Amino acid sequence: MAYDPTSPAIADIEARRAATGLSWQKIADHINRPLVWTTAALLGSHPVPAAEAASLGELLGLQPETVAAIQRQPYRTADPALATDPTIYRFVELINVYGPAFKALIHEEFGDGIMSAINCNVSFERREDAAGDRVVVTIDGKFLPYQW
Amino acid sequence: MAYDPTSPAIADIEARRAATGLSWQKIADHINRPLVWTTAALLGSHPVPAAEAASLGELLGLQPETVAAIQRQPYRTADPALATDPTIYRFVELINVYGPAFKALIHEEFGDGIMSAINCNVSFERREDAAGDRVVVTIDGKFLPYQW
Amino acid sequence: MAYDPTSPAIADIEARRAATGLSWQKIADHINRPLVWTTAALLGSHPVPAAEAASLGELLGLQPETVAAIQRQPYRTADPALATDPTIYRFVELINVYGPAFKALIHEEFGDGIMSAINCNVSFERREDAAGDRVVVTIDGKFLPYQW
Amino acid sequence: MAYDPTSPAIADIEARRAATGLSWQKIADHINRPLVWTTAALLGSHPVPAAEAASLGELLGLQPETVAAIQRQPYRTADPALATDPTIYRFVELINVYGPAFKALIHEEFGDGIMSAINCNVSFERREDAAGDRVVVTIDGKFLPYQW
Amino acid sequence: MAYDPTSPAIADIEARRAATGLSWQKIADHINRPLVWTTAALLGSHPVPAAEAASLGELLGLQPETVAAIQRQPYRTADPALATDPTIYRFVELINVYGPAFKALIHEEFGDGIMSAINCNVSFERREDAAGDRVVVTIDGKFLPYQW
Amino acid sequence: MAYDPTSPAIADIEARRAATGLSWQKIADHINRPLVWTTAALLGSHPVPAAEAASLGELLGLQPETVAAIQRQPYRTADPALATDPTIYRFVELINVYGPAFKALIHEEFGDGIMSAINCNVSFERREDAAGDRVVVTIDGKFLPYQW
Amino acid sequence: MAYDPTSPAIADIEARRAATGLSWQKIADHINRPLVWTTAALLGSHPVPAAEAASLGELLGLQPETVAAIQRQPYRTADPALATDPTIYRFVELINVYGPAFKALIHEEFGDGIMSAINCNVSFERREDAAGDRVVVTIDGKFLPYQW
Amino acid sequence: MAYDPTSPAIADIEARRAATGLSWQKIADHINRPLVWTTAALLGSHPVPAAEAASLGELLGLQPETVAAIQRQPYRTADPALATDPTIYRFVELINVYGPAFKALIHEEFGDGIMSAINCNVSFERREDAAGDRVVVTIDGKFLPYQW
Amino acid sequence: MAYDPTSPAIADIEARRAATGLSWQKIADHINRPLVWTTAALLGSHPVPAAEAASLGELLGLQPETVAAIQRQPYRTADPALATDPTIYRFVELINVYGPAFKALIHEEFGDGIMSAINCNVSFERREDAAGDRVVVTIDGKFLPYQW
Amino acid sequence: MAYDPTSPAIADIEARRAATGLSWQKIADHINRPLVWTTAALLGSHPVPAAEAASLGELLGLQPETVAAIQRQPYRTADPALATDPTIYRFVELINVYGPAFKALIHEEFGDGIMSAINCNVSFERREDAAGDRVVVTIDGKFLPYQW
Repeated sequence: MAYDPTSPAIADIEARRAATGLSWQKIADHINRPLVWTTAALLGSHPVPAAEAASLGELLGLQPETVAAIQRQPYRTADPALATDPTIYRFVELINVYGPAFKALIHEEFGDGIMSAINCNVSFERREDAAGDRVVVTIDGKFLPYQW
Repeated sequence: MAYDPTSPAIADIEARRAATGLSWQKIADHINRPLVWTTAALLGSHPVPAAEAASLGELLGLQPETVAAIQRQPYRTADPALATDPTIYRFVELINVYGPAFKALIHEEFGDGIMSAINCNVSFERREDAAGDRVVVTIDGKFLPYQW
Repeated sequence: MAYDPTSPAIADIEARRAATGLSWQKIADHINRPLVWTTAALLGSHPVPAAEAASLGELLGLQPETVAAIQRQPYRTADPALATDPTIYRFVELINVYGPAFKALIHEEFGDGIMSAINCNVSFERREDAAGDRVVVTIDGKFLPYQW
Repeated sequence: MAYDPTSPAIADIEARRAATGLSWQKIADHINRPLVWTTAALLGSHPVPAAEAASLGELLGLQPETVAAIQRQPYRTADPALATDPTIYRFVELINVYGPAFKALIHEEFGDGIMSAINCNVSFERREDAAGDRVVVTIDGKFLPYQW
Repeated sequence: MAYDPTSPAIADIEARRAATGLSWQKIADHINRPLVWTTAALLGSHPVPAAEAASLGELLGLQPETVAAIQRQPYRTADPALATDPTIYRFVELINVYGPAFKALIHEEFGDGIMSAINCNVSFERREDAAGDRVVVTIDGKFLPYQW
Repeated sequence: MAYDPTSPAIADIEARRAATGLSWQKIADHINRPLVWTTAALLGSHPVPAAEAASLGELLGLQPETVAAIQRQPYRTADPALATDPTIYRFVELINVYGPAFKALIHEEFGDGIMSAINCNVSFERREDAAGDRVVVTIDGKFLPYQW
Repeated sequence: MAYDPTSPAIADIEARRAATGLSWQKIADHINRPLVWTTAALLGSHPVPAAEAASLGELLGLQPETVAAIQRQPYRTADPALATDPTIYRFVELINVYGPAFKALIHEEFGDGIMSAINCNVSFERREDAAGDRVVVTIDGKFLPYQW
Repeated sequence: MAYDPTSPAIADIEARRAATGLSWQKIADHINRPLVWTTAALLGSHPVPAAEAASLGELLGLQPETVAAIQRQPYRTADPALATDPTIYRFVELINVYGPAFKALIHEEFGDGIMSAINCNVSFERREDAAGDRVVVTIDGKFLPYQW
Repeated sequence: MAYDPTSPAIADIEARRAATGLSWQKIADHINRPLVWTTAALLGSHPVPAAEAASLGELLGLQPETVAAIQRQPYRTADPALATDPTIYRFVELINVYGPAFKALIHEEFGDGIMSAINCNVSFERREDAAGDRVVVTIDGKFLPYQW
Repeated sequence: MAYDPTSPAIADIEARRAATGLSWQKIADHINRPLVWTTAALLGSHPVPAAEAASLGELLGLQPETVAAIQRQPYRTADPALATDPTIYRFVELINVYGPAFKALIHEEFGDGIMSAINCNVSFERREDAAGDRVVVTIDGKFLPYQW
């Protein structure tokens, strides 16, 4: 269930979200999971455990096939077209501009290795600001040293 | 001065960093600029104002050509090869996995628009954790609504 | 609803435009929105607010599904095939030829930063000219300085 | 002399511009040519006629090889890396978002054909605005009908 | 209606051409249009004016939807797969081999500019030759000087 | 010697052409070869026979290494960047727009096969026209049937 | 009818081959055509003349639409995915490894020109060998000199 | 030493071949190796054993560095530009047109597996023909069944 | 039957695996074939012999069309999207990081040649480890020397 | 120091390996590190700790610049050309053929997550076999569950 806005499961979720008016935050709170995890899972990036899937099915009034679909192990394949959407592209651009700096700082501080993208929490917040509210995304991943 | 590890300016900076043993944090503190900004600037992603460039030249003992080079307006071009380095790739993968969720959350919370990648601070921290220390990257960008 | 000439919403809009003979300008005037914005929105690049969507639905006699579709948040993904259409390609070629000049002039006049493509109006006009009428496109975007 | 920031001609021009402090506008006025044309020409997108080349050579104190180089017929080849620079990318994004609208409006207003990218003036201006100054780029190209 | 051999309009045209045995030349003569223009138009590269479309509909016995389809403004998008067909590839190869020569000759003879691909006739002929008949394609396009 | 404007042989030829003021037509006449062939050969697309190479060396005053270089069997490799030059791109666009028509006409007139790009003459002419002079390129290639 | 394993014509042919148990060799013998030609034609690379198409239709019991489809002029477009199949990739690898040698030998032996891929027979044989049987593919193409 | 016409080893070999006038066949005979193998090896596709390398060094009068270079294990990397040379491209086109047929015939005759490109001889011959001499390339590779 | 998660055969297999709760290991044991081979075969990478296909059909309760589909010779085409799935990408990254080392070690130990990917067993095991269990994949392929 | 066979460090290592005749195994044993790790490190994929770098410098007689170069943090960028070398390509092909099976088996056995390519040992062995010796590569990586 890689992200595909025309898949029946995504279409059902979007339609039910619109009909119920439930926000992503409300949906996440209902299953007691983080906001970004829940949103990503319902858009096809994480399998949803059975209990949470059932609970979401009830909350939103999803089709049984949707409830089954969101529990399946997804292919998390990258669709290059998505990266051209302006809202997503700004994140791509940040990696282009700051990627070498992230690499230099990780190696200086931790040595040779990577920040895990698997053991990794991502949070999303709105921060009020008089000069215009701000999007705050925090990536918090475990350092993994190259290890033999 | 897009990032190019073989350019004379980058080579000079790396050599002088190695010779002086100055960390990126020390260098950033010296010019009173944020850590990620300073690292990115010295790796070719931001032009350094004249005063800071002179100050960095003294601190590290850079060549005059390097001091001039870091003040020039850079081309911030994306080198696709860099994105295949494992340390940088994990950030690319996070965008692949969470990009649609970021888009959905931005639009729900703010309406139609983007998080600016220009009016945007990026911070980098090491957070201690008994199960293994963590890399924490925070992206804090102003929301910009589509506006005519 | 990225631009896809075979989507049902676009097909409905094109069919109703042909049946009613309404020009893009007339349609834009009816909802009191700029010409380029309106055209782009009906071709899938901007979500249409509810009131304007209803008004367009009446004016053109659109299907209810079309009226709903044009209100949804679109994916503004770039289809590389569209850029090969000769009418669109000429704009691409202008960026190829004048892109470095735009960059140089923006940086000289404003410093380091970009012209926003989000806080940006685009207008389209026909200008009469004895040697052949001309297309005049004006791009008017806010300068955004790199700002931490 | 397609745009290549490391070519000797471009390097000479940039160095002499920095040394003399002459703005692009001053340079354009000196040879009585439009601003964007002059900037693009000196960055390798247009051949400069002999008289103007000589005049520019004197004004800026260019090397004789540079004066010869800017008169040569250029290859105006597109370097895909340049399009990833954030300042240039915003123009690319505008074509992605508004390209189909431009096409629709050109065909409605003029019939089948294109806006010429050859018989075409491009201007660049700074417009003051209390909410932040703006970049205004105007593209003014002759319509060319498909004609047999 | 970019070229797509599986679109209903193309399929109808091909089927009716086969059923009636009418050659492209006969079809072109019937509407008094050049051979290459007519063939290209019916394969999706040019919109057919209403009178000619009706006349073609009668001649070939096309479906009403086909008659409507061929009048619509096409997207002339390039399908890279088509360029690998051996019959089309030979033309691509000629551009690869002679493109720089065309450029050099155009600039020497006319100055800086291009041969228009819009104000341009293309003809196709069979020329008998004892050593094997020949395909003769003539491209006749207006020179357009770069003009501000 | 695929086309490479920075190769020493091409640079020598261009410099000597500029110094002597000899047009491509004059050069072609001197060795009694067609105009397009001669231009393409000197830009690296055809090996020049020994006698003609010597004659060109004398006419233009070429370096001995250039005279040797133009006799070598070239790699006629396609440089995708060249196809983005506007003067060359118009030919590419013509193939995009008319390629399927060429294919249909070749097969109707000759049966299954191709127009040879090897047994093929290409001519270039300027044709005067009150509405603006025209570039006329004629491609004249032998038909080759698929043959076992 | 470029090769597409899911097209109805190919599916019909494969199903009937399986049902009848006829080998490609038997099918080729039945219409008195070479083995590789026949196999390629039924997989969409060559149009089959009417008599042979009818004869194949009877032999295999093909649908009338299949008999019509195999007579149509195909687009012989290259599907890059096919080249990644290991059985086909080995041929691609041979061209990578021996392509420059083929070029050198053709030019030494024949002068400037190519081996035709149109006037060309390809045969396929199994050769027994104690160390393991071998695939023997012979390509036999007419040399075509560059000729004006 | 992947094929690179500008590498010093290849340049030395080509220069000495020109100076001595030795054909590839003569060179192959001198070291008692097949023609295609020898040509490919000297163009960088196979390492030459020490004895043969010495013998070739003497025969052609190669530089000692060239004699050393041809013994090294090469990277046999594919340069996509080479495939666009018309002489090499015809082989690529043959794979495009006949690849699926080769696959079908290999599987029918031998079962699931591939023709080895490693245990594989390739020969090259000129065959006289009244209608024009022919290039005959034979590929003779061991069948390898998928085997666990 | 290249891997395509939406093909009916794969969908049937996945649905029946879910319904029966049979692990890949159980399925492999049932037909007495290695684990990785069996999994790959049911995902479209190997044809299943008739007896094993029938046995699998019974075990899992597959549709007759599925039992037929898994016996067909597959196209083992590479889908570049699959390589972006994080679970698969880690294997791609290992080849990027260790590929040159594998090449150097194979050539040092065995001489010029390759490890066969056809005469090759691949095994998969879970190895318990106090610091976290491990995936152990073993690739065991026959060395094939370049051989003429 | 991503792998680049023409970099001075790699050239020095290769030259000294050839001069000393030391195998990769001997070199690895000398610094008491695994074989694949050592080979990869000297080819630019891992930074070598100072003590081991000094020890290798002595053993092989490396240049001081080489000893410094191998200690630097490398960019492990993927060069797509390397993947086309036949010896490396076989590993790529194995991922293409078995990647979906690896994914299915990892998820079945361990749940949602990946095999780490960072906490991962890779070994290389020659295994004697009467039917031809075999390359045995073992990948042993820690499973990492998706974890928030």
